[in-house]
Amino acid sequence: MTQIKEKIIRIGQMAKQASEDMRQLSSEDRSRILMNISQFIKANHFKILEANQKDIEDAKNKNLSSPLVNRLILDQKKIDALVATVENIAQMQDPLGQILDEWSQPNGLSFKKITVPLGVIGIIYESRPNVTVDAAALCLRSGNIPILRGGKECINSNTALYQCIQDALSDLGFNKNLVCFIDDVDREFVQELIRLDKYVDLIIPRGGLSLIQSISQNSTIPTLKHLNGICHTYWDNEYSEENAEKIIVNAKLRRPEICGATETLLVHEKIDSVSINNVLQSLMNQGCIIKGDKKIKNFFPSAIEATEEDWSTEYLDKILSVKMVKDIEEATKHINKYSSGHTESCLTNSSQTINYFFKHCDSAILLHNASTQFADGGEFGFGAEIGISTDKLHVRGPVGAQHLTTFKYLVTGNNQVRPK
Amino acid sequence: MTQIKEKIIRIGQMAKQASEDMRQLSSEDRSRILMNISQFIKANHFKILEANQKDIEDAKNKNLSSPLVNRLILDQKKIDALVATVENIAQMQDPLGQILDEWSQPNGLSFKKITVPLGVIGIIYESRPNVTVDAAALCLRSGNIPILRGGKECINSNTALYQCIQDALSDLGFNKNLVCFIDDVDREFVQELIRLDKYVDLIIPRGGLSLIQSISQNSTIPTLKHLNGICHTYWDNEYSEENAEKIIVNAKLRRPEICGATETLLVHEKIDSVSINNVLQSLMNQGCIIKGDKKIKNFFPSAIEATEEDWSTEYLDKILSVKMVKDIEEATKHINKYSSGHTESCLTNSSQTINYFFKHCDSAILLHNASTQFADGGEFGFGAEIGISTDKLHVRGPVGAQHLTTFKYLVTGNNQVRPK
Repeated sequence: MTQIKEKIIRIGQMAKQASEDMRQLSSEDRSRILMNISQFIKANHFKILEANQKDIEDAKNKNLSSPLVNRLILDQKKIDALVATVENIAQMQDPLGQILDEWSQPNGLSFKKITVPLGVIGIIYESRPNVTVDAAALCLRSGNIPILRGGKECINSNTALYQCIQDALSDLGFNKNLVCFIDDVDREFVQELIRLDKYVDLIIPRGGLSLIQSISQNSTIPTLKHLNGICHTYWDNEYSEENAEKIIVNAKLRRPEICGATETLLVHEKIDSVSINNVLQSLMNQGCIIKGDKKIKNFFPSAIEATEEDWSTEYLDKILSVKMVKDIEEATKHINKYSSGHTESCLTNSSQTINYFFKHCDSAILLHNASTQFADGGEFGFGAEIGISTDKLHVRGPVGAQHLTTFKYLVTGNNQVRPK
Repeated sequence: MTQIKEKIIRIGQMAKQASEDMRQLSSEDRSRILMNISQFIKANHFKILEANQKDIEDAKNKNLSSPLVNRLILDQKKIDALVATVENIAQMQDPLGQILDEWSQPNGLSFKKITVPLGVIGIIYESRPNVTVDAAALCLRSGNIPILRGGKECINSNTALYQCIQDALSDLGFNKNLVCFIDDVDREFVQELIRLDKYVDLIIPRGGLSLIQSISQNSTIPTLKHLNGICHTYWDNEYSEENAEKIIVNAKLRRPEICGATETLLVHEKIDSVSINNVLQSLMNQGCIIKGDKKIKNFFPSAIEATEEDWSTEYLDKILSVKMVKDIEEATKHINKYSSGHTESCLTNSSQTINYFFKHCDSAILLHNASTQFADGGEFGFGAEIGISTDKLHVRGPVGAQHLTTFKYLVTGNNQVRPK
């Protein structure tokens, strides 16, 4: 057995053991820990920024790309946001012990289905140091023990943030292993962590597509993952140009780099050419490249001709593919074929059209007359999210503390035995 | 590409296509199909029994073990039970379109979380031909397309039963691919099916431990599985000998071969030796072997001494390991360490003890004063089950039609865009 394997097994055992201690804690205890973490982050913001400065310098010395460096950066504003998130999570309703269902059977057995923590969650993330705190806070809220494994580019920031969590736990006299952390950047730790099925109940990978695919394919532990967001907006003919422009521009350009950004616009063929021109021109004026199918190009010659590949491309950039469709039926067919099942929006004032869309479209989040950029745990009222799931099992869409739970059945009898 | 791979991709595409047709069907349509399947099974019972006879003869010619042959056998009584199950599932409440949650946000967006089918489910099973019908019925009830792949030992029975399903679908004019079936016994089909992640949303393996482990480790599709059932009964000192005897005998011996059978009995050390003797003697008189720890052996010398291995062994036989514990705390610690997280029962009249057990014990099903053999979808009121999940994600315990669903969010706006 390698030293790394031995070390990861020890961490797994510690985490499993800590999950027993976690069970003793009340909702108030867990809130108190979260409030104390926010205090320690506030008190140590200089240390955190200093550590972050070191990561940024290292990254620059290694000539990392500027988007990568940007993701690393913490500043006072980001630390304030981090503190606010933790305090928000501290005040959320406890997701544990919720009664999901209750019934009894004719033989007198009575059933209660209640929420409980999943147990131990391995969280593997890349370059955003805020994940260290967000993930720890969501796991504490939901009674789970996280094993955090951040990217090597922000090891100093992560370590400084983790130190605040550790100090907040000891300060209140709780087991420091309620939040576990892998402080070694050797990649072998990730390979071993995703096979630690004896101790770990769930793996959540966060980062680029290739990292996530590689983890989910090699893990012997169930994973909860976000692959990609090929999101659509359908612009129906029964909808005003004014509102369409407002929503489409927001859905594409508010932040083109997020997974909830619209990548394909489907336009009803009966919308007049002037309106189509106006909306596409407005996008172009704001720096957006338009890739249109042949029909769209006829209306709007500045469009680049879209290829088959465009319909399944997540640009994450100021690029929009646009296709003309006969009706909501064709739009839905296109979406169900090319979408990644993340988020779609239908812009229409026809109740028949929205009913068809809601019934037949198969994605996790379906919006009526609103921007796809609302695909976000905060916007859903979940307090914070650990990511957006494009899986179908366990949870779809934004993953908040309430989704990091499972359930157990409590069955109360009166000395019943099962007949032959 | 091998011929088998080509064939399985075609089946996957057909199933995916059929899931679009399935979406058009109402709950009544799906009930009507189920009732028609039961009619076709009734009308063709001779053909089914004839096909089954052929499987039994083949199995005997191949000298298959007698438990294996027994699992193959269909008779009129089993066919009647199959028909009753299908009719029961036909009459169940529709698990689709259920509103799981509803809320709105201050910006006026209103949210609805509703149940929808998972999509396409690959079901890989061994020698029980009834699974062909049970699985198809549960999938139809929940709007999913099954791809059924049964064991080669019962290919004739499965084909005959599948023919009834096909005839029932055509008879009503529905797409026959609403239920898909792999009629080729080549093992490569299983290897390809579990990697068909483009078309299949879930794999449910049913059968022996090694089959299930191999499938879940090699599948690129999420699996829902039952590994094993190391179930415990804790006999507290505040509980009568009479009731203890009744429940423990039932929990172990009603059907020792099922996953909900108790494998380990934990006995409170303050129970008097006469009571312990009586209960263990009663088990022995009914053919049960007792494996006890040292303390138990002192009270009951006929016990064989248990080894460390016994505490994590699923006997599925008339064997019971018995350990003496100090209190519910030690009992729970033992259970959380050795249990497979399936089902545990606590026999006590102390509310403090049962509260401790319900709070601290981590398994899917916790019973108070009832036999562990109640771990069953029918007994839970789920109509029928496709198995019992020992996973923690998505669903734990008995898996009924209602658990073969996921959800989507329907978000209704009023032309909202997301602020910067």
